[in-house]
Amino acid sequence: MQIDEKLKELKAAVEGRLAELAPEQAPELLRSSMMYSLEAGGKRLRPAMHLLAAELVGGDTVQCLDMACAIEMIHTYSLIHDDLPAMDNDVLRRGRATNHVVYGEAQAILAGDGLLNYAYEVMLQNALRYPDKAGRFLRAMSRVAQAAGVGGMVAGQVMDVALEGQAVDFPQLQYIHAHKTGDMITGALTSGAMLFTDDTAALAAIEEYGRNVGLVFQIVDDILDITAGEELGKSRGKDAEEGKVTYPSLFGLEESRRIARQKTEAAKAALAPFGVKAALLCELADKMLKRSM
Amino acid sequence: MQIDEKLKELKAAVEGRLAELAPEQAPELLRSSMMYSLEAGGKRLRPAMHLLAAELVGGDTVQCLDMACAIEMIHTYSLIHDDLPAMDNDVLRRGRATNHVVYGEAQAILAGDGLLNYAYEVMLQNALRYPDKAGRFLRAMSRVAQAAGVGGMVAGQVMDVALEGQAVDFPQLQYIHAHKTGDMITGALTSGAMLFTDDTAALAAIEEYGRNVGLVFQIVDDILDITAGEELGKSRGKDAEEGKVTYPSLFGLEESRRIARQKTEAAKAALAPFGVKAALLCELADKMLKRSM
Repeated sequence: MQIDEKLKELKAAVEGRLAELAPEQAPELLRSSMMYSLEAGGKRLRPAMHLLAAELVGGDTVQCLDMACAIEMIHTYSLIHDDLPAMDNDVLRRGRATNHVVYGEAQAILAGDGLLNYAYEVMLQNALRYPDKAGRFLRAMSRVAQAAGVGGMVAGQVMDVALEGQAVDFPQLQYIHAHKTGDMITGALTSGAMLFTDDTAALAAIEEYGRNVGLVFQIVDDILDITAGEELGKSRGKDAEEGKVTYPSLFGLEESRRIARQKTEAAKAALAPFGVKAALLCELADKMLKRSM
Repeated sequence: MQIDEKLKELKAAVEGRLAELAPEQAPELLRSSMMYSLEAGGKRLRPAMHLLAAELVGGDTVQCLDMACAIEMIHTYSLIHDDLPAMDNDVLRRGRATNHVVYGEAQAILAGDGLLNYAYEVMLQNALRYPDKAGRFLRAMSRVAQAAGVGGMVAGQVMDVALEGQAVDFPQLQYIHAHKTGDMITGALTSGAMLFTDDTAALAAIEEYGRNVGLVFQIVDDILDITAGEELGKSRGKDAEEGKVTYPSLFGLEESRRIARQKTEAAKAALAPFGVKAALLCELADKMLKRSM
């Protein structure tokens, strides 16, 4: 598949730039705690989507590589804070000790705060390099901020924590998925395109792709929590142990897979107006689905 | 003093706008936890400085009221996270229960995350209202981000936590003061002026005023921790109890007061080029000093 090659290339570009962006102005301890989690690997899916959406509308990805990295910083801060003892109390992430296990709780909170703020430092510095495109950069950054924000990712996490251990109904599950996971995926995609086009139909199509793909991502994660277990570097079946409501717990594995397939088709259909230019993003949607099959 | 009237007026403007900015898109719990700390009062010193610096260079404060509010949000997030059990473990702030006492540790972390991110949501949204000034808004936001960031406020907090309970020397004390407290004060001032002028000499003078006033603020806080105690809604002499190095512990009360007076004069001298237009900021420097005398 062409998408595997492409993802490898984008991951290398993002990781190379993340290393360059290691904050020289930060005290050694803070730089080290931030980079520990930032360099922990992962698929770099959100920045890759940002770059693919930029390419889809004919954009120059050099201009948005820093925004892609900032998106990964925001994602990483959210993982560090989610793993804290006061939240999920996870000691392993991607097979490595979580940030607070290595640096202590106080420094882990600050590593997260640092990464979130640094994401904006990096985006704003980069925007200043393209004064002719200031308006587009402002709109794209605003889109990212909204996705990460109090009606977006933070909102999803607040409800996830608030409803922990309670009987969660389907609308609540959908709210948590849409915001905790979905918003940063649509935000990453749409902001990448917004830097290079004002075409509202194109942006709406990309947003629609993102909404569907985000849901696939979460349903597949729920499925894998049951079927794959330790491969992910997580404890096996943690959701079920904790009595968490998930797609499989509500609908069963087979129906969850069917929904995931249907959302994948909807994601690809949304990009039909782009024709063959959307091939990579369509392959990506298929690839995300296949993890669970 | 004219400055008292002015501060009252600016505080009212900031608090009015903060109430309007209460995030409708956030879940009720998150909005409530964010607003609990945001509405806890305080002097609103940083946003007031932002607005005074804007006025100093002839700016229209309507344009920067949202940035002033965002600066207060960033300050408030830092207080919520500083008060957490893993950090200073404070149960009282301005005479009220701290955020984590009311909302629990997990939601307090998220209220802080929410406020930090929302500061950028608000600033970016506001910047989009002034497309002709996009470049200036980008530069001013970048200045705020830098002040709040990994070489600024977060850096100061990281070192404060890292050196807790250790013998801190004077350069370390200066580093913590300059970054933890000082950077957001200079950042608030300079960003306010940057929205309305590109005059580098004027901006450097304001920066110099801010550096001195920030130091006065911290020295006076250290002095008050010894002399005023519970008036501030804090436990009496907490610094001394914890064996914290402070200006008074290093230099004694009288010498600390002398240094504070000298820095106040330096702050006012920096604004001499502005003549009578700087009267309010000069009064403010005097007022900050007088708290401790």
